[in-house]
Amino acid sequence: MTDKAFQEYYPEEFSHCYGCGRLNANGLQLKSYWDGDESYALFQPEQKHMAIPGFVYGGLIASLIDCHSTGTAAAASYREQGRTMDTEPGIRFVTASLQVDYLAPTPLEAQLEIRGIVTELTQKKVIVEAKVMADGKVCAKGRVVAVRLPESMRKK
Amino acid sequence: MTDKAFQEYYPEEFSHCYGCGRLNANGLQLKSYWDGDESYALFQPEQKHMAIPGFVYGGLIASLIDCHSTGTAAAASYREQGRTMDTEPGIRFVTASLQVDYLAPTPLEAQLEIRGIVTELTQKKVIVEAKVMADGKVCAKGRVVAVRLPESMRKK
Repeated sequence: MTDKAFQEYYPEEFSHCYGCGRLNANGLQLKSYWDGDESYALFQPEQKHMAIPGFVYGGLIASLIDCHSTGTAAAASYREQGRTMDTEPGIRFVTASLQVDYLAPTPLEAQLEIRGIVTELTQKKVIVEAKVMADGKVCAKGRVVAVRLPESMRKK
Repeated sequence: MTDKAFQEYYPEEFSHCYGCGRLNANGLQLKSYWDGDESYALFQPEQKHMAIPGFVYGGLIASLIDCHSTGTAAAASYREQGRTMDTEPGIRFVTASLQVDYLAPTPLEAQLEIRGIVTELTQKKVIVEAKVMADGKVCAKGRVVAVRLPESMRKK
């Protein structure tokens, strides 16, 4: 495990994301870390994140998988190059596709654990498979195809 | 087009969803309608919903597709039975799987239009294909497999 989250290395320009930006005061501020070859994040849903009373709405789970996986894609790319995440040039990923299978209702009260593994890594594309667990039970599985950020999305 | 949104027919128990619940004061309150055989919803992202400055974060798009599609699944099932949505027994759907392909960066300033079509409908399962457009351009496509709400998620 590492002390500093992947997202804490993002430069200011990339730190406003609703899902994982440390500078988005209204957002989820997801933080992801390595645990060996797996990445993980912990997240405590709030009452407002419900689908129906007692259960988390699906969009939150999709958001957590999405942000955790793009963060994992970046972290894995730095690691592949033997670099720490605070070195230049920066490596950023965006989501090309997101697949989520909802396996069981996700309780609202439990802390959620999101775990990811990289199943494919090239310079342009990283595939991350993720699962979301509550009380040790897998509630959702996801698969994200992350691609290197296109220049058109960079600020001029 | 109809005057009343699908979600406005949901009973109180199902009106707390962060994505589409009319009673969730902190949520997105998505509202979906018929336009012939297509369903549609309009949504104006807020500044906080950004991925990076100027663009919408992926989790919002996933949330909109998810809630719009489960709403469409319910509405289509009532329509198939020749019933209005305020008749009993109630028909509710939850998401079994969600697939989103992000085709182009989605601008934050534009009003988003989500459109859905039902491609499969049985008593237990409805498949909805959806797209998210901004300024007339398709930014994302989605596919939701919605299944009838399991009894385990109903309040006792």
